[in-house]
Amino acid sequence: MNRATSLFEKIQQGDKRALARLLSQVENDDESLSPLLSELLTANRRAYRIGVTGPPGAGKSTLTNQLVKAYRKREKKVAVIAVDPTSPFTGGALLGDRIRMNDVMLDSGVFIRSMATRGSLGGLATKAAEVSRVIEAAGYDIIIFETVGVGQSELDIVKAADTTIVALVPESGDSIQAMKAGLMEIADIFVMNKADRTDSDKAVQALESSLQLRDHTADSWLVPIIKTVAMKGTGIADLYAAIESHRAYLHAKGLLEQKRTARDKEFIQHLVEETWRRTFWTPARQAFLSQKLAEHESPYRIAELLFSNHD
Amino acid sequence: MNRATSLFEKIQQGDKRALARLLSQVENDDESLSPLLSELLTANRRAYRIGVTGPPGAGKSTLTNQLVKAYRKREKKVAVIAVDPTSPFTGGALLGDRIRMNDVMLDSGVFIRSMATRGSLGGLATKAAEVSRVIEAAGYDIIIFETVGVGQSELDIVKAADTTIVALVPESGDSIQAMKAGLMEIADIFVMNKADRTDSDKAVQALESSLQLRDHTADSWLVPIIKTVAMKGTGIADLYAAIESHRAYLHAKGLLEQKRTARDKEFIQHLVEETWRRTFWTPARQAFLSQKLAEHESPYRIAELLFSNHD
Repeated sequence: MNRATSLFEKIQQGDKRALARLLSQVENDDESLSPLLSELLTANRRAYRIGVTGPPGAGKSTLTNQLVKAYRKREKKVAVIAVDPTSPFTGGALLGDRIRMNDVMLDSGVFIRSMATRGSLGGLATKAAEVSRVIEAAGYDIIIFETVGVGQSELDIVKAADTTIVALVPESGDSIQAMKAGLMEIADIFVMNKADRTDSDKAVQALESSLQLRDHTADSWLVPIIKTVAMKGTGIADLYAAIESHRAYLHAKGLLEQKRTARDKEFIQHLVEETWRRTFWTPARQAFLSQKLAEHESPYRIAELLFSNHD
Repeated sequence: MNRATSLFEKIQQGDKRALARLLSQVENDDESLSPLLSELLTANRRAYRIGVTGPPGAGKSTLTNQLVKAYRKREKKVAVIAVDPTSPFTGGALLGDRIRMNDVMLDSGVFIRSMATRGSLGGLATKAAEVSRVIEAAGYDIIIFETVGVGQSELDIVKAADTTIVALVPESGDSIQAMKAGLMEIADIFVMNKADRTDSDKAVQALESSLQLRDHTADSWLVPIIKTVAMKGTGIADLYAAIESHRAYLHAKGLLEQKRTARDKEFIQHLVEETWRRTFWTPARQAFLSQKLAEHESPYRIAELLFSNHD
């Protein structure tokens, strides 16, 4: 039995270290993986994807931690993909939160993966999609994407979720007016975390009035606002219920299938393009590109020459 | 004379509205543009690229505004590409700053372009690169990218600059320890803006000690910290001098040419890939993809089938 097959078997048997090793290879674009991934992904299993986003300090990691516990109580296998912001301006804040995750990390039904945003080849959202496919194939039922809600790539990750939770804290209230257009678009559920603070009711009211301005038909999902104190576990049962209710809504309307098909299409396009990229950029074509550049040929013309030569 | 040619001529003559119209077409991936862009980009002119980034509230727009004026005094044509954060969490803040730009906007040697990060096809950094190519071909000498320093795509834009300025304010001081690794990597020049505040010296000192931890040889660029009060124009002459000094350094070491070649290569790869994407995804292939998905074939297998059929 070769090494690849045994890694595959270990993953199917729930070996978390084997899964982590495979994911590192996926993140590093290890080309030799293709046959293994192909075999693994043929399983075509389905995990439910939950996105948790919000400004720094909104308690996203604590909420995620509580959600993991809620799903574990129902015997679901849960994976968390935590996207570390590369950003030098938000870099340090998550360390403490990550430590709080420790109590769930020891649970064999929980898999936690941190993704560095820095230097990931081929785009962060794409990589996160690939990583989540592998995790889903490894038998996890729920995948939670936790990401700070700033930056295009980070938002793209959350948009790929089935249910997106936007976490706020009362202090976020003031900025809600300014940001509401963006928030309305991505949130399926709002969480007002740290709702034991005195100003939380005002913040919830402000958010509610923003939500009422939103266009909706009798048929559309009404975005709920769930009050939580994630550190104490308060409101987590309500949040769990809201997620499951949104999931039932998507399912009933055929929207879950629609989201999955759209996601599959995008993933296939990505796979085809990756394969093309690897086969196209031969050493000969790369040398041709460098030579023409040295001759001061215009980039546009070089691109045309390269493309018209592509067998 | 056809419409495309006349648009081309107008742009060459410095018509800002014609340039703006062309850029909108570029941003919308208008395929009919290729011949025009090809002609325009054959000019192969060179603009110097300056990135200005930093946390919200650091005064990036005001600094940019001052830099525009400094270069205008030297008769340079200056373009600003301001990347609006899509992020719902930072969305509103730049409006006021943009208004302050008004005094430079009326100058015929200044071109200002806001890029929406939301919904840009094919990646924000790529689009910004394309937009800056067109602006450079239109005869601008300096291109300033202004972007809030959070999120991968936003940082990618700034990294494509020849000189990257990271703007901070004294309040940012506390977080410098946590973020220093990331900041060190991208900053060629630090600006401590709003340096008339009492706590600014302490912030500069903290930043200096972080900088001293950095590896460097006798030959490497020493990142300066420039104190400014951008609203009053204080320190702008120093900042201008620092940029020009960095530019001279890059030039002397052959690094400017190296950066430009790397940027050209990346741009050519992007052009080739865009062309491939357009020709590959025929209606027939798209229909094949949908059909196989409906038959519950695995994404990986569908990708293989599609690719092995590629002419």
